[in-house]
Amino acid sequence: MPWAADAPVVLLAGGVGGARLAHGLHFHLGERLTVVVNSADDLERHGLAVWPDHDTVMYTLAGLDDRERGWGLRDETWNVMEQLQRLGQDAWFALGDRDIATHLVRTELLRDGTRPTEAARRLQAALGISARILPMTDDLVRTRVRTDDGWLDFQTYFVRLHQEPAVLEVAFEGAPAASATWEVTTAVRSAAAVLVAPSNPIVSVGPILAVPGIQEALAETRRRGTPVVAMSGIVGGRALRGPADRMLASLGHEASALGVARLYAPWVDVFVIDQVDAALAPQIEALGLRVVVTDTIMSDDAARARIAGEMLAAAGVAGS
Amino acid sequence: MPWAADAPVVLLAGGVGGARLAHGLHFHLGERLTVVVNSADDLERHGLAVWPDHDTVMYTLAGLDDRERGWGLRDETWNVMEQLQRLGQDAWFALGDRDIATHLVRTELLRDGTRPTEAARRLQAALGISARILPMTDDLVRTRVRTDDGWLDFQTYFVRLHQEPAVLEVAFEGAPAASATWEVTTAVRSAAAVLVAPSNPIVSVGPILAVPGIQEALAETRRRGTPVVAMSGIVGGRALRGPADRMLASLGHEASALGVARLYAPWVDVFVIDQVDAALAPQIEALGLRVVVTDTIMSDDAARARIAGEMLAAAGVAGS
Repeated sequence: MPWAADAPVVLLAGGVGGARLAHGLHFHLGERLTVVVNSADDLERHGLAVWPDHDTVMYTLAGLDDRERGWGLRDETWNVMEQLQRLGQDAWFALGDRDIATHLVRTELLRDGTRPTEAARRLQAALGISARILPMTDDLVRTRVRTDDGWLDFQTYFVRLHQEPAVLEVAFEGAPAASATWEVTTAVRSAAAVLVAPSNPIVSVGPILAVPGIQEALAETRRRGTPVVAMSGIVGGRALRGPADRMLASLGHEASALGVARLYAPWVDVFVIDQVDAALAPQIEALGLRVVVTDTIMSDDAARARIAGEMLAAAGVAGS
Repeated sequence: MPWAADAPVVLLAGGVGGARLAHGLHFHLGERLTVVVNSADDLERHGLAVWPDHDTVMYTLAGLDDRERGWGLRDETWNVMEQLQRLGQDAWFALGDRDIATHLVRTELLRDGTRPTEAARRLQAALGISARILPMTDDLVRTRVRTDDGWLDFQTYFVRLHQEPAVLEVAFEGAPAASATWEVTTAVRSAAAVLVAPSNPIVSVGPILAVPGIQEALAETRRRGTPVVAMSGIVGGRALRGPADRMLASLGHEASALGVARLYAPWVDVFVIDQVDAALAPQIEALGLRVVVTDTIMSDDAARARIAGEMLAAAGVAGS
């Protein structure tokens, strides 16, 4: 094997799906886990640097996530937001009180010139997380989507408009001029395995691949024998969460595990699909991918750990 | 009379004492009231622009102040602060959740290039306040105090060290290069009366006078017959609130209404003292000040309105 026994396992991840799989992987890997998160959904609200995907993964790994709501912190309160509304602010992006503490610390660090990656690591350390969560880049990359109403910021589409408009085109503003951090490229190059979370392939995984340096690092690590193992976030033709299915369709892709597999085939080795999609296996294998069929629904901690274990097994990595 | 019937009445004010008198004056004057607040106590905490004196006056005029605690908003909660502490932040300056909404809106306005005076007016408008509360300047002025431990930021002395060290010297950093806003100088020049709140004469009223342009405007308005009426914040030799008595003493002044009168005599016409200090009246009159003796303790709304009415009467201004 070309990697060390303690070589990192890298997970490319968006928000909720990424957080659940990261949580499962963390049971097996502890500090060996490195999560590279999409930062193209980040936004500034009320002057605060808000990083939805990073924070969802961070809160989940810290065991502080609200499982019922599916995002944000458990036992959250909303008093700042309520007062912002009284002050006439347009409070369409809900920020909880405890969550705002995270944004305050981060915003101050960034304004003081701290690199985003370093700011992220300090917050993770403050919450006692042993895994590493790395923004995909320290540069500003922002997803924009074209709809019948023209180009929109991602969060305007996603939160404010409840993902209702059809997405006709997607752009990652700033990506061509961005570069991957050495933390990300080093982790990918030295990884025992690279995993891809069941996140939205277009707007969660897509921006990570759009950062110059990341695809190159992935290609290099695959040449050296490190497998890339992805899981489908489309099950039975439906997204587990969010608008991935409609987005795939409106962008001309098939809204199925096969549609995702076609997007991933150039850079992925193993594709994990749900039992309900078992019939798609031959078509996916025909794309050159090895297929693993399992129950992919991460309903509880046990399921998260089991599915993470199966992904690691598919990648030939033994958990600790 | 040299002023219009709707000419503003200007109150020079610090925090709590200023807020109480402003509240009383507001009963009589409504939108005729212009409060010029000390901004040399302002600070940045957790990346937020925090303006303690301005906000105390603003919350009080909006009827949102917490009367028991004496500062901040009523029905306040502290969840952001609690989480900031969990994140390892040194949370010595308490910021309530609803209060943080104010700071967020202001910080964003300032970062977008809005003048402090304009940012202040927008927040006041959002809270439905008809009076005007003007920072003494749009420039950065910061009070620093010298103690046995060297020079300290004002809030480090005031909040963090609970005003315990003796103040040996006071400086208003930035004041020489600052200038009064046209809003402040215009209000003072066109005022029917200028009142001075029972605030700390050294570190609340002092910084306002230290801003170039304000003393000149006061002198001009007095030459045109507008009276300046001040109230003593030292009653029976004790500060009503805060460290003014100890500060006067350690700086070589008398810690009494007479000590304050000596500081104010060059630019004030009428001095309002409490009944308990009636015996000081002859000495204060000998300084060239007219003296009004009354009960100056603003214990409730009725007392605030009565005392404000007496100050207006002393200034020859009829309330609405």
